[in-house]
This record gives sequence, structure tokens and C-alpha cells, in this order.
Amino acid sequence: MENFVAYNPTKLHFGKDVLNDLGNTVEPYGKKVLLIYGRGSIKRNGIYQKVISQLKSIQATVFEYSGIRPNPVIEDVDAAAELGRKHQVDLVLAVGGGSVIDSAKIISITIPVQTSGWDFYNGTIKPKTAISLITVLTLAATGSEMNPFAVVQNNSTKEKLGWGNDLLYPRHSFLDPQNTFSVPKDYTAYGIADLMAHCLEAYFGEGEAPLSDRFVYAIMKEAIIYGPPLLDDLENYSLRANIMYAATAALNKLTMYGRVSGDWGVHSAGHVLSLLYDIPHGASLSIIYPAWLKLQRERIPERITTLGKNIFGVNNPDDTIKSFESFFHRIDCPISLSAFGIGADKKEDIMKVMIHNNVTGNHHKLTREDYSRLIDLFI
Amino acid sequence: MENFVAYNPTKLHFGKDVLNDLGNTVEPYGKKVLLIYGRGSIKRNGIYQKVISQLKSIQATVFEYSGIRPNPVIEDVDAAAELGRKHQVDLVLAVGGGSVIDSAKIISITIPVQTSGWDFYNGTIKPKTAISLITVLTLAATGSEMNPFAVVQNNSTKEKLGWGNDLLYPRHSFLDPQNTFSVPKDYTAYGIADLMAHCLEAYFGEGEAPLSDRFVYAIMKEAIIYGPPLLDDLENYSLRANIMYAATAALNKLTMYGRVSGDWGVHSAGHVLSLLYDIPHGASLSIIYPAWLKLQRERIPERITTLGKNIFGVNNPDDTIKSFESFFHRIDCPISLSAFGIGADKKEDIMKVMIHNNVTGNHHKLTREDYSRLIDLFI
Repeated sequence: MENFVAYNPTKLHFGKDVLNDLGNTVEPYGKKVLLIYGRGSIKRNGIYQKVISQLKSIQATVFEYSGIRPNPVIEDVDAAAELGRKHQVDLVLAVGGGSVIDSAKIISITIPVQTSGWDFYNGTIKPKTAISLITVLTLAATGSEMNPFAVVQNNSTKEKLGWGNDLLYPRHSFLDPQNTFSVPKDYTAYGIADLMAHCLEAYFGEGEAPLSDRFVYAIMKEAIIYGPPLLDDLENYSLRANIMYAATAALNKLTMYGRVSGDWGVHSAGHVLSLLYDIPHGASLSIIYPAWLKLQRERIPERITTLGKNIFGVNNPDDTIKSFESFFHRIDCPISLSAFGIGADKKEDIMKVMIHNNVTGNHHKLTREDYSRLIDLFI
Repeated sequence: MENFVAYNPTKLHFGKDVLNDLGNTVEPYGKKVLLIYGRGSIKRNGIYQKVISQLKSIQATVFEYSGIRPNPVIEDVDAAAELGRKHQVDLVLAVGGGSVIDSAKIISITIPVQTSGWDFYNGTIKPKTAISLITVLTLAATGSEMNPFAVVQNNSTKEKLGWGNDLLYPRHSFLDPQNTFSVPKDYTAYGIADLMAHCLEAYFGEGEAPLSDRFVYAIMKEAIIYGPPLLDDLENYSLRANIMYAATAALNKLTMYGRVSGDWGVHSAGHVLSLLYDIPHGASLSIIYPAWLKLQRERIPERITTLGKNIFGVNNPDDTIKSFESFFHRIDCPISLSAFGIGADKKEDIMKVMIHNNVTGNHHKLTREDYSRLIDLFI
């Protein structure tokens, strides 16, 4: 086991009607709130109204920035930060899924500086302080609600990058499974694929960490057992709750303690598909993971088999890979880019952007030959 | 799943030579340190010298209170708090196992008040503030290093009670598996029994929490796999590390999220044995748990079987109970009070103190008839 620091200061409020505590929780941080959300679904499902009513109950002044896209872009981050700077807000309140929360994290460190949030990604500057961040999660998927990571896309440089810093931990996150009832079937499934992929990135990282491996199995089994029935019963509180907590646990560092690093090669490749074709993040992962496992089939057969044994009860790498494919099939997640109408003629385009983004894993490095084989396996 | 708040602010520094960061970590909290430790083993194994050298490096002034007993008593807490109050210390530094850390937690909230720490246990007063607490763990067992709980004994009232409050979280805890190399075989085994019992108290608590159940299996499997070989190889870093992290994870609330409560009936009964006969805490648990499982055998056979399936690969309650007995046997932990030379003639004494301490579980309530059957099963 490698040395590690276990630390996660986010306070997670999980369960039915936890939003009733939002006003009281916000109040100690101040009354000028920068509210960040997406493209309006929270107004249709009533979450927006609940949040506003909580903020009104403490006489907060609310500045809104909406329109955050599913693959969030740095232009929105910078514009929202400008709004927050202008009004000298006391805290950032993010209401949405991973895109909204990731954006809000970068907004919270960009407000105190006079530059673009992208400068944190390209390493030009380092954050010294952050505006306090509170989140209300409406989609179980990325785990952003309880971790210090954020992924943002820069269309002008054709980059989509992940980055982490302890200043990015939300102070509080509110997770009411009821707030995910209206997430449609496809995005519910993408969220499940995303949480599975987070477990896999940890598991295929570097270093021996047996308890973290067992936590990976624990979380993945939740997804395997409760994911498929949830897709037929989208307003089932218990199933929503199980998946929501599993998604948080899949990326709150619990699966990482004792490892050198996670791998993140599949995420790195998945970001390229989202960048090029605006493919939902979770779908990019269900497309690439089986292909990546096939690519690694001869290199790490035992590691793949151990995983298969523990989560699917199978005994060899091929059955493990098949089990992943049939699981993704059961939850209607694509395992080929063709599901989005994209064919082999795009291989060169994808290669180019993979090279430009230096797509690779931290542990399992990917060569250009690997890019080519990988694309052949998922296109 | 029940509503829950997931929150744990302790920063855990885990791994080889992490004590090298102790001085730098202490410094921001102040220079007047109340150092709490046990009966001197840290002087023999060199940990004391390392701690003092780190404190000297930041020119700290150190006030020492030593002699904390394995089943810690309130008199020591009060005397140490008096010392800290007199010298207006900035922080409490606990170096030891669960007894030392539990004592230090109560010391840290007793310093700011003009009364006995026992008043927190009997509910006379509530803590409003705490002196910052940093811990250096030397025994893998209680999980106290990353939780807000503390157990203290009061010999004058013949009570041994557990109690929790968010103010009791250590700010930092330093866990170097090397610092447990000199723990003798018996106490290493008691620590393993203790971590197993913590998992069981969570598992047999109230409420359905499937992911927390799976975390229980994950942690118990670590103990089952790495515990026995460790007892034959006490200075094996990797085995010490696996058990040390498992013990922390067994009681840092991870196994509890989504439950109404843990059970804690066996701990409650175990405290009586420690109180009466000074039996090591872990040994009291290995003695009582198999008996408790037999008591519950007809009441919750499925729950017992599900556990057995997941951690021992057996298929019925009796084999589950037998597996626990043979596991405790393999690690030389007693499963009967006779191991300490205590026989059936003491049954009435034990009954009396169980009644006086209101021994019971939160979920599986224990009647006086249960006391009698339970004692018959372990005496």
C-alpha cells in the first residue's frame, strides 16, 4: 500500500427532503448568492422553485447564471465568474449535475482572480482562495458533489481537461434522490456507466490497495444490481437512492486510498469523443471501456479476471469483458460509436484530437498504435 | 435507505514515516502541547523520541500526562484536563491506541470547562468547544483516530460508557504501520477482533443500507485474509498496513451511512466484562459475539446467513457462527470467559452489572432472559 492522505471535508446531506435545510446551511456563508444552473430542467421539475424559496427564507440576494451545457465550456465559467466578481458574491450555489458543479467549482476559484479559469488548467496560475461552494445535485453520475475535481472543455483550443485542487471541495452537497426522478432513462443509464467507469479508473490505476479494490467491487455491485431495475422504474426512491449514493462513493477518493494513481486513460479518450461529437460523457465511457479492456486483454489478464470474479462471478478475462458488454447492453448504453451514427471514416479525425489532447492513462500508457487499435475496437 | 449526513473532517496521514510531518502539522495550532500517552511502551519502541523530536523542531513547550490505562478511567481524564487548563495548552497530542485517544478526546472538551469529563457522559453538560486534537496511532483496533466517539470507564459508578460528538473528531491522525510492529501477538489479535466487531455492530444495526453492508464485507474480508498471516509475521509492513487501514475504515462511519443506527449490544455487554475483570476490550468482543449470534440464531437467520455468504462463503447461520468461532480460534482470541479463568459461579455478578449498565442493543434489544442465555453461552 502506498502512503496516502485520507481527507474529504464536504458535508453530504443525503435523503428525502434534505433541501429543507438548504437556507439554514447557506446563511452562515453570506447572503449574496451566485446561483449556477443548466438549461432550465430544474424549472420544469420544481427544484429551482424549492431552492429559491429556501434562499428567500433567509433574505438572500440571488444572481443567476444559467445555460451551463452538458459538456461544460470555459466561456460559461468565465462569464459566470465575471458576474460573481461584479456583485461580490459570498457564495456559489450550484444546482444540477456534474457539468454544473464542475463549472461552479472553477467559477468559485476564478471569481477572486482577474483572468480566465482556463489558466488553472494550463498551469499559468494556481488558486490561492475560493468562494464557498454549496451544491444541490440533480443527476447521479460524476461524483463531483463530494470531490475536488472538475472537467471543463475549451472549444477554441480543442481540449477537454480534468484537474483537481483541495479548494474545489464543496462545503456542503444536498442529495435528495427524489430530485433525480425526472432524469430520463438514457441519462440515468449514462450516469450508471459513469460511476462504473470511475470505479474502473481506480481499479486499473497503479499500486496495490486491497481494501480500495474491495470498495470498488462493493460500489460496482450496487450499480450492477440496482441499475437495471431502476431503468424500468425511474421514480423508485430506494433504487434512485442506491444509485445516487453509489455514484458519490465511486469518486469521493474512497476507491483511491493506497494507490499511486488511478488510470484515467478511458476518460481521457472519452473526452475526445465528447469534444468532437458532443457525445454524453457516460456514453463515451460505455463505448470505450469494453474496447480498452480488449486492448489490455493480453497485458493484464489476471487483473481483469479478478475484477470479473468479484463483480460478475466469472472466471476469465473474456467473460469479464463480455459481462461488461452485456451489462451496458442491458442498461441501453452504447458500446460502439456507430450508435451515434459515426463510422470508420472518422478514425483519422479522432486520432488527430487524441494526439492533440495527449490521450493516455497514468498507469497504462497508450501509444499511437494503441490509439489506432482502440478506435478500431469501438468505432 | 435512511437519510444521513456523511461528514468526517479528520485528515488521516497514512503510511511509512508520516511522523516526519508531525511538527509542521502541529505548528499552526500553537506551541503549548499537552502530550497524552499510556504506560511507557512508546518510550521503549522509540515513538516517544520521534514525537518529541518533531515537537522540538517547532520549539513547542510540552506538558506530559502519561499512564492512561488500557480500559481508560475518568480520573485520568480529569487530571490531564486539569494539567492542560493550568498551562493553557493550545492543543492535545495523543500518542497511543484507542484508550489514549478516547481519553484525549474527552480531555480536549474538559479543559475548557470547570467540571469532570464524566458530566458529558451523564448528560449534565454539553460541550461547546474543544481544544484541537492531533493523534499518533500505535495500535490498530478501535478506529478512534478517525471518528467522534470515546469510551471511558467510571470505577466509582461502575459504568463504562461510549458517547459521541462532532467536537471529538481529531484534526489530524498519523498512522504509520511501522508504529504497530511492536504490538504483541495477543493485542494484535484483539485489535482484529475489535475491528471485526465494529463491522458487526454496523451490520446488525437497524435499517437497510446495501452499500454500507458491502463496505462491511469488504473490511471484514481484509481482516479474515490478512489477520492470520500477520500474527505469524508481526513486522510485515504490508500486512500491518492492511489491518491498520481496515481498523480505521471499520469505524469511521463509512459502514453506517443509510442506517438508523448500529446495534452495539455486544459492545455494551463487553464493557461489563472489562469493567469487572479488566478483560482487554477486543477479547471481550470475541468472547461475546459468537454467543450473541447464537442468541439471535432463531431470530434473524437470514441476516446471519447473508453475512456468512459474503465473508466466509458459507450458506447457513450455523456455519456462519462456526466460521466466526474458528476465525477467532485461528487468531488465538478467546470465545469463552473461561479463557480468563472465570467460571459459571460469576454469572450472578455479571448479571448484576449488566442490569446496572442497562446493557442492550439499539436494534436488537436484550431482555434479562437474554442476559441469562447470553452469559450461559459465553461463560
